[in-house]
This record gives sequence, structure tokens and C-alpha cells, in this order.
Amino acid sequence: MARRLCRRRPGLAQRLAVSMKIAISGKGGVGKTLLSSLLSKSFAAAGFSVLAIDADPDANLAASLGFPDPASITPVSEMADLIEERTGARPGQSGSFIRLNPRVDDLPERLAVKHDGIRLMVMGRIKRGGTGCYCAEGVLLQALLSHLLLQRNEAVILDMEAGIEHLARGTARAVDRLIIVVEPGRRSLETALRVRELASDIGVTRLSVVANKVRHQAERDFICQNLPGLEVIGFIPYDPALIEADLAARPLDDASPLVSAAVNEIFQKLTSGEEGKK
Amino acid sequence: MARRLCRRRPGLAQRLAVSMKIAISGKGGVGKTLLSSLLSKSFAAAGFSVLAIDADPDANLAASLGFPDPASITPVSEMADLIEERTGARPGQSGSFIRLNPRVDDLPERLAVKHDGIRLMVMGRIKRGGTGCYCAEGVLLQALLSHLLLQRNEAVILDMEAGIEHLARGTARAVDRLIIVVEPGRRSLETALRVRELASDIGVTRLSVVANKVRHQAERDFICQNLPGLEVIGFIPYDPALIEADLAARPLDDASPLVSAAVNEIFQKLTSGEEGKK
Repeated sequence: MARRLCRRRPGLAQRLAVSMKIAISGKGGVGKTLLSSLLSKSFAAAGFSVLAIDADPDANLAASLGFPDPASITPVSEMADLIEERTGARPGQSGSFIRLNPRVDDLPERLAVKHDGIRLMVMGRIKRGGTGCYCAEGVLLQALLSHLLLQRNEAVILDMEAGIEHLARGTARAVDRLIIVVEPGRRSLETALRVRELASDIGVTRLSVVANKVRHQAERDFICQNLPGLEVIGFIPYDPALIEADLAARPLDDASPLVSAAVNEIFQKLTSGEEGKK
Repeated sequence: MARRLCRRRPGLAQRLAVSMKIAISGKGGVGKTLLSSLLSKSFAAAGFSVLAIDADPDANLAASLGFPDPASITPVSEMADLIEERTGARPGQSGSFIRLNPRVDDLPERLAVKHDGIRLMVMGRIKRGGTGCYCAEGVLLQALLSHLLLQRNEAVILDMEAGIEHLARGTARAVDRLIIVVEPGRRSLETALRVRELASDIGVTRLSVVANKVRHQAERDFICQNLPGLEVIGFIPYDPALIEADLAARPLDDASPLVSAAVNEIFQKLTSGEEGKK
């Protein structure tokens, strides 16, 4: 029982009567997907209806969440027929007309996959390139993301890249919290400051930092000192047990009691003080 | 002396009379930039004229190479006037005409910055987004990258993202070796297999793997077993001394004798057996 990620607290979601929309960003490799999957499980365990969104083409949130056969999930960006039907252009097609406000309201139900009480949508990779403007997928993904953030009344956990520009201005206001994950390393702190700028550009105001792979107090101090004005809401310890669990294909959510306790504390901070919110 | 990254071997570059063009890819956070900067230094120490290219917007190769004031270097993608002059469209402008073969041959001399015998170009971030097709920067960056790979007779070290699609088909053949960096972690191996597919699509045939942050034999075995058909040309050990050096803003190239020895071995493998090549 002590190894559970968090105690099941039936009715917390109902008692709070809130939806929480959390976007998780940061430099590649800092642990965005780890935090996204563990937080998704915390929210589900507390009774929230959880929609996890994998918007980082370099990640595999399905695998981290323990979905069986993650490779069988087709990312939205690869559904060429659907993209053409909704935008008027096939992915990778350039020069043609693209419908900028495609209809997406029916897509979440059609496209989400479910496992262990968590629903998941995988957005996929937008191909970029030189000679063509690969925008049909981009238009559909952005419309879908906007819909999910603006319309869904549930806990939405969005695992995304450091480039957060695909949160459109209107959408960004729907995000309750942007968590920037960092690790002890200057590059990840630089990325955090860049994400803060991008966030401010598009109107996201509630930013928090989670520091991952932290080994000792000097690293904690270093991170806090180098992110002035940003609130660090949690420190997740470096624990090789997570690497071992990953290599052995064992679930990460009970691989490390230390990591689980740290994520549980972050979950508590995120959900406490939310009562006043609609 | 034992702590030098590699022994200076004057004339190796001349003796080999080769140019080497190495692209370094892999999942975010695996250590592409570390390997790019240490290899750049190895090539420079051996007498090669080195051009390092930062094509990963999530990285900071300038800082890793010890360039003073990396923030003062303007990435090519942010040179709006230059982009407009060469492509006919400003960055972020959509719907307008874009010249698909912009002239770039004069740009390397104009835009590269030099420090410690290494020349560096920072490509920058291509903005993606929903409603506009942000392609002017993309067109210029791809033309520039093609030029650098096809025309320059020197050691080119290209630090890039896992999405290697901006290596156009013709350019890809100019790359002598694509190194995929992995770490002990399933996601990084999945990314490696995806990069291999992309590489095959665009005609890159010489692929090698470097495994970073390796702690013990079981991790080495795991990596080899899970990358069938891919040659692992080096294992770089996990050494917290690198984190300490990074946080203290000390140069990484003499922070860890173990890491330096491993990179030196990789450099030897890359340059040996190249005599027969033009």
C-alpha cells in the first residue's frame, strides 16, 4: 500500500468540481513523459476522468501509461483520409486550399483509446520540410487540441515539446497550469526560460517548475537560483530504479517509492487551493 | 596530458585527405550535443578544419563548445531581413510566394562564428503553427544545410533533432555517417529505430550508434540486443562529473577522463579506414 502512487480518495474530483488542464513542457529528455504518466495516474486514482494527450512526437506516452501494444495506436497526424476529409488537403500536400477551421468535435470520442481508466490521444508528428508546406496535419492537430482544452470538462494532461507554439493564444488561456520540467543541467534551465517567454507570448500565466533527476541539495539550490521568478513545485529524485524498471519493461508507477512520493506531493499541490475555481 | 580529449596528431587530416560529414541524431536529452562538441574538438585537435552546425533548436552547441556569450549569436532562422532577401518572404508570412532555391553560397562565410579553431553556424527554430505555413525559414535553412554538406571540404559535425527530415534526399548522400545517440532507456531505442527508417527513406546508408550514460554491462547488452542490425561504435559511461562541470560552467571536454577516452575511441573509429575514401 505504501508503494501506491497515491491513496485513492474517492470523490475528490467531484468534491472539487473542477476540471484541471495541465500542459507539461521542457527540454527533451528531462522526464516530461514520466511526469505526464504518473500525474495522469494520480488524477485517475483520485476519481478524475482523465484524458492524456501525447503531443510530443519524440515521446511515447502510451508505453509509459502501460497501454498494451502502443505501436498499434495510429497517431492523428497519420490519418491521411481523416485529415483530407476535414481540411480538404492530404498531409504533405502543398499548394492546395486548406480549411482553417476543420470540424473536430466528434473526434475525441472516435480517436481516444482507453486503458486502466485513462483515455489517451496521440497527436503524432507534423512533417516539416523544405519545398512543401506541410500544414494540413498542423491545422487539424491545432483545432483538435483547442477543442480538447476548451470543451472537455475533465483532467487533461498534455505531454508536449519545448516548442509550445501550437498552443494557440485562445487555447493557452484554457491551460490551468504549464509545468516546465527541468533537470540539473544548464541546457534544461535555458529551455525553461525560453518556454516562459513563449508562454507569455501566447497568454499562459500560471507556470510552475518540476525538477527531475535531482541528486542532492546543491542541485536543488542551483535550479532555484537559476530560475528566478519561477515557482518550483516539486523535486523528483534521481533513482536508477526507474531505468531498471524501464529496461525490464516493468511499470514505472511503482518502480520507485521515492519518485512516487514526490509526484504525489506535486499532485497535492496542483489540486489544493483549486476549490475556488470554476 | 592524460586528461586531454585526444592526442594532437598533426597532419592526420592532411594525411587522410578526406572530408568527414557526420550528422548526430537521437531522442532529446540523450547527449547529442555533448557528443557533437567533443567530436568537434577531437577533429580540430587532429588538424581538421571543423564546421559545427547546431540544427537542434532544443540544444545549445555554442555553450557546449565554450563559445563566449552564446546568447549573442543570432540563429539564421531569426534573420528576418536575410530570409526575406533570399526567399522573397518574411518568416511567419503565409500565402506569399517563396523562392524555393535561394542563393546561399556566400552565407557560410558571413554567418559562421569562430572560437578555439572551430567554426559554428546556428540554424535556429522553424516556427510551426496552425493557420500559417511558416516555410520561408525552412526553405532557407534547408538550402543552407544542403550547401554546407555538399560543398564544404572539411569536417562537418551536424547536431540535429530526431526528426531528420530536413536532410533532403540529395543532401543525405553527402553525410558520411549518421550517428544515432541512445541511452539506457526504451524510448531512446524506439527513437533510434524510427531515425533508421527516416534515414533509409532519404537515402542515408551509413548508420552507427553511440550509447551514452551507460552504467554497466547489462545496459550495454540491453542496448545491443534491442538494436539488431545497427552497429554500436562506442559506449560513453554515465559520469556525474559531467553534471557537476556543467552546473559549475566548467568545460565539458576535460571534466571526465572516462568520457573523454570513450569519445576519443569513437573518433579513432570514425577516422580509421577512411583512407580509401575521396
